[in-house]
Amino acid sequence: MASLLITNHNLSSADAAAALRSRLKPFREAYDSCQRTRRWRSPKAAVIPAIHLPMRSLEFKNRLIVNGAEGVIVGGTTGEGHLMSWDEHIMLIGHTVNCFGSSVKVIGNTGSNSTREAIHATEQGFAVGMHAALHINPYYGKTSMQGMVSHFETVLSMGPTIIYNVPSRTGQDIPPAVIQQVSLNPNMAGVKECMGNDRIKNYVNKGITIWSGNDDECHDARWASGATGVISVASNLIPGLMHEIMFRGRNPSLKAKVMPLIKWLFREPNPIGLNTALAQLGVIRPVFRLPYVPLPLERRLEFLGIVEALGRENFVGEKDVQVLDDDDFVLVVWENPEALTKGNISLPKIDESTIGYKWSIFVGGFFEEHFFYQFD
Amino acid sequence: MASLLITNHNLSSADAAAALRSRLKPFREAYDSCQRTRRWRSPKAAVIPAIHLPMRSLEFKNRLIVNGAEGVIVGGTTGEGHLMSWDEHIMLIGHTVNCFGSSVKVIGNTGSNSTREAIHATEQGFAVGMHAALHINPYYGKTSMQGMVSHFETVLSMGPTIIYNVPSRTGQDIPPAVIQQVSLNPNMAGVKECMGNDRIKNYVNKGITIWSGNDDECHDARWASGATGVISVASNLIPGLMHEIMFRGRNPSLKAKVMPLIKWLFREPNPIGLNTALAQLGVIRPVFRLPYVPLPLERRLEFLGIVEALGRENFVGEKDVQVLDDDDFVLVVWENPEALTKGNISLPKIDESTIGYKWSIFVGGFFEEHFFYQFD
Amino acid sequence: MASLLITNHNLSSADAAAALRSRLKPFREAYDSCQRTRRWRSPKAAVIPAIHLPMRSLEFKNRLIVNGAEGVIVGGTTGEGHLMSWDEHIMLIGHTVNCFGSSVKVIGNTGSNSTREAIHATEQGFAVGMHAALHINPYYGKTSMQGMVSHFETVLSMGPTIIYNVPSRTGQDIPPAVIQQVSLNPNMAGVKECMGNDRIKNYVNKGITIWSGNDDECHDARWASGATGVISVASNLIPGLMHEIMFRGRNPSLKAKVMPLIKWLFREPNPIGLNTALAQLGVIRPVFRLPYVPLPLERRLEFLGIVEALGRENFVGEKDVQVLDDDDFVLVVWENPEALTKGNISLPKIDESTIGYKWSIFVGGFFEEHFFYQFD
Amino acid sequence: MASLLITNHNLSSADAAAALRSRLKPFREAYDSCQRTRRWRSPKAAVIPAIHLPMRSLEFKNRLIVNGAEGVIVGGTTGEGHLMSWDEHIMLIGHTVNCFGSSVKVIGNTGSNSTREAIHATEQGFAVGMHAALHINPYYGKTSMQGMVSHFETVLSMGPTIIYNVPSRTGQDIPPAVIQQVSLNPNMAGVKECMGNDRIKNYVNKGITIWSGNDDECHDARWASGATGVISVASNLIPGLMHEIMFRGRNPSLKAKVMPLIKWLFREPNPIGLNTALAQLGVIRPVFRLPYVPLPLERRLEFLGIVEALGRENFVGEKDVQVLDDDDFVLVVWENPEALTKGNISLPKIDESTIGYKWSIFVGGFFEEHFFYQFD
Repeated sequence: MASLLITNHNLSSADAAAALRSRLKPFREAYDSCQRTRRWRSPKAAVIPAIHLPMRSLEFKNRLIVNGAEGVIVGGTTGEGHLMSWDEHIMLIGHTVNCFGSSVKVIGNTGSNSTREAIHATEQGFAVGMHAALHINPYYGKTSMQGMVSHFETVLSMGPTIIYNVPSRTGQDIPPAVIQQVSLNPNMAGVKECMGNDRIKNYVNKGITIWSGNDDECHDARWASGATGVISVASNLIPGLMHEIMFRGRNPSLKAKVMPLIKWLFREPNPIGLNTALAQLGVIRPVFRLPYVPLPLERRLEFLGIVEALGRENFVGEKDVQVLDDDDFVLVVWENPEALTKGNISLPKIDESTIGYKWSIFVGGFFEEHFFYQFD
Repeated sequence: MASLLITNHNLSSADAAAALRSRLKPFREAYDSCQRTRRWRSPKAAVIPAIHLPMRSLEFKNRLIVNGAEGVIVGGTTGEGHLMSWDEHIMLIGHTVNCFGSSVKVIGNTGSNSTREAIHATEQGFAVGMHAALHINPYYGKTSMQGMVSHFETVLSMGPTIIYNVPSRTGQDIPPAVIQQVSLNPNMAGVKECMGNDRIKNYVNKGITIWSGNDDECHDARWASGATGVISVASNLIPGLMHEIMFRGRNPSLKAKVMPLIKWLFREPNPIGLNTALAQLGVIRPVFRLPYVPLPLERRLEFLGIVEALGRENFVGEKDVQVLDDDDFVLVVWENPEALTKGNISLPKIDESTIGYKWSIFVGGFFEEHFFYQFD
Repeated sequence: MASLLITNHNLSSADAAAALRSRLKPFREAYDSCQRTRRWRSPKAAVIPAIHLPMRSLEFKNRLIVNGAEGVIVGGTTGEGHLMSWDEHIMLIGHTVNCFGSSVKVIGNTGSNSTREAIHATEQGFAVGMHAALHINPYYGKTSMQGMVSHFETVLSMGPTIIYNVPSRTGQDIPPAVIQQVSLNPNMAGVKECMGNDRIKNYVNKGITIWSGNDDECHDARWASGATGVISVASNLIPGLMHEIMFRGRNPSLKAKVMPLIKWLFREPNPIGLNTALAQLGVIRPVFRLPYVPLPLERRLEFLGIVEALGRENFVGEKDVQVLDDDDFVLVVWENPEALTKGNISLPKIDESTIGYKWSIFVGGFFEEHFFYQFD
Repeated sequence: MASLLITNHNLSSADAAAALRSRLKPFREAYDSCQRTRRWRSPKAAVIPAIHLPMRSLEFKNRLIVNGAEGVIVGGTTGEGHLMSWDEHIMLIGHTVNCFGSSVKVIGNTGSNSTREAIHATEQGFAVGMHAALHINPYYGKTSMQGMVSHFETVLSMGPTIIYNVPSRTGQDIPPAVIQQVSLNPNMAGVKECMGNDRIKNYVNKGITIWSGNDDECHDARWASGATGVISVASNLIPGLMHEIMFRGRNPSLKAKVMPLIKWLFREPNPIGLNTALAQLGVIRPVFRLPYVPLPLERRLEFLGIVEALGRENFVGEKDVQVLDDDDFVLVVWENPEALTKGNISLPKIDESTIGYKWSIFVGGFFEEHFFYQFD
């Protein structure tokens, strides 16, 4: 059987196109779920079948927006932004704005270790409607403190910005002196900080808005150190519990209860754990893009116990949790996302589940409500 | 003086960034005029100055939407889409959706002579919210009739589509047999047809929705041949008059009155005439991107008389019309749009007037109201 | 079975990579045929098997270089340059320089209807070693005569240039006044002219070097009008005969003998005819990229008679000519060239036959020997 | 005055193009220095002036190839590869192959933290003639050990490969277990290792070829731990001394003599130190691309003493070393490399000195001769 965009050419191109069309259908429906791109009922198109929300979008709405997520990070590391080209990245920001921009704040991860790429992406991201940019310090290439300040000040001039500090990924800490200098910029919205709650407290005392970047520390970051919220991996799985931890008062026993999940989730760099979990919860298809591979069977077995302990009803999705076999996973290099293949069945390039897959993982978690009330 | 993204490095990077920021400011404001990206009043940003619509956006609203334009073609030839990279093109579609998508229909010109490029751009265009795609037959590379049908059927499968036939640009006519075959597709919204009113009448009789692609023939296309509307160059200059010609009943005398302008406008391939006119009306800056150059002085002088005869008040813009000197024009290659330079003054990459400039020219003109009422 | 870059993930990634490697192997060998990238015999790699030229490269050498082709156009319309992205296009220029640059002149088609794209591609093309650029006038978007001159003068400043005039594709003639003006530039190497032998004679009389762009007129262009050579489609099929027509003296009877092939070849825009012929000659795989589709069965049958009349030995390739069925052809959209699929067999992205396929078609034909002797 | 690709349009486009041409001239000459793209003496171009090697290429040859560099890394971090787009990156690999591929081995840094980008770049890099690829583990995004192995095995299947381990940049060590597993691949050429000489010795004992990645440890890596060579930053400044350290026998006193330079060079992430040094030596223009900024004045003063102590004659370049003022440096964002501006003078996009600038910094240093003799 030929794959998506390829057909045995029997010289009846109408047939070929019809076959293609039928395969592309879910893609079209994905867009129909968006608010703005409503059905076009052309004079000839009166019989377009009833529209229903694709499962993934529904899922997104059910589990995240309804449960209180106030914003999403589009194309962060958890959302595999570094595996997308910039045009896919910007398209996904525009798509999210178009579909969910009136329900949640859309924060585009338009940072880069190249200042010109960061400028270019940030311009385009704001142009397509993102509410704020997330900016990382120049990872891998690195630079001096002065270079870091110049980098941030350049991009800060473009619009509301959250700075992200995660030395375990970047190889270089953003020290308080840099944060304080760039905080003078009126576009500086705050910091996603992974360097611990002491530093968070110090920033909060200086009037800087902070989101915790560590799920395991976010309870204390909030209640002891004054963090505004958390940009979270775990909230993609247990949005309601994470919301409770962050916004319904101190709750050390709930924190203790979710810790096994969080520890399990961070055994390998995310999105490895997250995607393994979502696949076993039946929320995404078991497809991994290299260099990511699923957690091994031993860990996948552990996940069952974790779900049982916390209660399946607290997790996203509606299917029973299951242990996937090695053979259930598909590993793709994604040079050609359109060729996602399972068994003999070819799937369209951007079908609802692919989009859903991306959405499921770029959802960055909770922002404190009051913060966003300051939008006018 | 150094140009935009360059600064004499005096090692006070804060100063450098501040200078950069001040130059980028209009860019920020351009976004602030959009509905969705409203001002973010961060705790530290209470003193952001009062927002006012950038002139160009205001212009766009005043002259086009208020006057009855129902849709815009983003990145058509008049809008210089072939001078943009695909990522700029898609960004501009997303930007237009984000800023004007609730007022006008946004039609992305996502056509290409490469089927894979057309597919890629159309996917991205629908993803960022365009309402319909405009598709051209494969120009320059050309193909057989069967290849043309296969090309159109592939892209038609993706969403609502207007087909565009302009043999004087493509080197190849889309014959009625092809149009009739692809019209069986429920996503086929209609044809922008430049091959004369007899062909238009023939299509209309067969129930195919047609927009005239020729300003000089659009009155008769509408009132004698049954065209639904026009996708127009002249409506960028005289939106009200064009609306009157198309939707207030037969009006041969008004048609005759605007013909001198239309003839003047089409002496060279557009956007040459249109951009020359808009520059002399003070609506856009007198910047041309190669391979386009302004009309010569002789024609620029003629334009004054044309404006006088039709009445300045019927044209867009509010400044007095003027004759520009050769020296007033700037010719750019636009490898670096950020370096638009006039005299010694460097202008930011995408400032409001650059965006305005693009907007001013991709505005494709009028669609018949009833057509769009069929959106639900 | 999974396709190329996808594997059922059995968590033995070594196996997966080995499978991948075995599929990619032809790709590696393709490079090994190049002069510069010789085999790297690392201490651990003593057992790499004997290198043999991939069939396609061999074919290229046998049929074209040996037979007297003096140059190739990389990424012209016949070579489907408009179906490649710019990075593929430049890569292919660099690849051709690397593999064949010491045997033939490599002319990169780095023209565009966007001046900035033409500049960018031409810079990159010269940087990776092309000997000259081919530049087209701005097709589709078109411009004024003055715009055309500005476009050409801009790119001429970058290096040796052949101008290409083909109004049936561009929708706009390059008139003699423009050619004469740009001929003042020392980088102007000549014109590929499709507007007939009278115009060619006129140019030759003025000292301008001309290659005919029309196979059916090239004999007379050479012997009656003074053209230097031809940039040819037919020479991809019958290099020896074309060479004879052009460089062994007037030969009206040979010209008459090849005319049926040339007429057959140009029934549809190329590369439709050429690729159909090469596939039936067994030289390329029967894969078409949209918007191109093969000639219909009726024409494919005719081709057999044409080959018989001219003699199989005068055509490239060594297999018997055959009539392919509709089912033998594969139609791809080539969003993912890596997924060229025939039946159940997945083929690697750039295998030797894919590269061969591209080479086979960008070979632009003959240049007059003496011309190139003027390189020093 | 207008900047490079912009001209006051006086409607004499010939003048405009002539001005443009004169500015672009150095660019053309840069290519003329390459072996393959020799002067094209068209019938009309007999008066092209005598070609001379551009200073930068000459510099490159004089100081690096003549002094014994056996290979260059194109687009490593020191060469600012992360500040280039992929098409620039591949172009630069092809350019280097074209100009210097017969003198030195060209190693393209085609690694990425996205497996699909690494595959795409590596395919293109081999296609344009690079001799080997340099591959990094997935930095920033990171992955599990198993993901790392899958990533490397995928790219190793494409051609000769050097693996690069630099945890201080990537945030993640490549442990010996991973290196040993991927070393089974016959394309594995060796490791550029930054994790110390004990680990190097361990690898060497297992028969793995190692280049030291640390200038300060390379003497001992070579003479005590058995490293084959070094991929070096300092060799861009003192090629002869570095060659002596590595290949003329143990020399602790020479090592001690160069240590102050090496320490000075690594005070900030490179290429900050290197570019500051090259600018003060008069070898490159004092232009920095963000996020890089020059070392502060205090360090720049120190450099004078270092050069004096080692002897100016041991450094590259021929001008007197000088201390540059803050005002001498230009900081660019390089969205538009063509607009490198100093004072009021606009410089062409890729002139010889820009190319020279890039070359000067991607030169990775010395490889042991015998290693490369194993090429056949």
